[in-house]
Amino acid sequence: MTLYFITGNKNKFLEVKKLLPEIEQLCLDLPEIQEIDPREIIRYKLLEALKHRDGEFIIEDTSLYFKCLNGLPGPLIKWFIKTIGVDGLARLVEALGDDRAEARTIIGYAKSKNEVYFFEGSVKGRIVSPRGEERFDWDRIFQPEGYNKTFAEMTIEEKNKISMRSIAIRKLKEFLES
Amino acid sequence: MTLYFITGNKNKFLEVKKLLPEIEQLCLDLPEIQEIDPREIIRYKLLEALKHRDGEFIIEDTSLYFKCLNGLPGPLIKWFIKTIGVDGLARLVEALGDDRAEARTIIGYAKSKNEVYFFEGSVKGRIVSPRGEERFDWDRIFQPEGYNKTFAEMTIEEKNKISMRSIAIRKLKEFLES
Repeated sequence: MTLYFITGNKNKFLEVKKLLPEIEQLCLDLPEIQEIDPREIIRYKLLEALKHRDGEFIIEDTSLYFKCLNGLPGPLIKWFIKTIGVDGLARLVEALGDDRAEARTIIGYAKSKNEVYFFEGSVKGRIVSPRGEERFDWDRIFQPEGYNKTFAEMTIEEKNKISMRSIAIRKLKEFLES
Repeated sequence: MTLYFITGNKNKFLEVKKLLPEIEQLCLDLPEIQEIDPREIIRYKLLEALKHRDGEFIIEDTSLYFKCLNGLPGPLIKWFIKTIGVDGLARLVEALGDDRAEARTIIGYAKSKNEVYFFEGSVKGRIVSPRGEERFDWDRIFQPEGYNKTFAEMTIEEKNKISMRSIAIRKLKEFLES
């Protein structure tokens, strides 16, 4: 059975495919519910996908949590980027005076509605003024703990070694192989 | 045909019923999609409701827009309240240095999937430190333009005279009567 990664984001797909070559991209426009817990957002989408067709599916969510906002933006990060942009996010954190943040990827995997599993990876860091090239949304303002580069200043290979997304994918890979 | 107000919020239901006595409350747990445009959130819910049963339905959304956040929180206000609370919202606005805000109610009405109408009411104001009794979520930090009381310091009658919700309901009422 084919393993489909449901995403409209080509960059995410390619990043995941590097670590999990067997996946295929599937573009399905699934409703994204309002939730602060990404597992609920992912679960809802997986169950919707299973209503449409049989198969094995994975869905990914990467959220960004600010200490100064007690967990916001979390999975609502894309709305923050749409409204105030990454520059606005950096200024917001500066105004509130606590730059600690955590980036967290959750991958949901399902092959039936009773078999939904989650795999998580997270990286702690700080929010800084934008540096590096524009790639993924907020890579320019996230500097992982122990590094003096933002994600956007690293090569894809450097980032993949430590990123929350690759940690989650490695866990999924172990699960699929066992 | 009965006109159902779909909401789980008893306070909202009673506030609306005062102005629109014919409505009945219907509790349906409909998916709330992630959107910055409340019309899309409401439309999705109305169409879901119509899949389940025939009828005339209204759904209400009240959003709060901050100038300093370029439109956030908007319809995502409930997540801001869950994470940082109204006190946190007031501090955030203070840190960013621009207290202008707008409260906006949108009521969606549908009796079939091709007949969906929207009615809007809005009130400009400022975000202040919490004052008044706890009632609706953020009434204690919203002070409408031209008043020196927050919504929470007003009586229900005072608030209903000027609120974004009653403006939207009056528009709906005119539509239903014409």
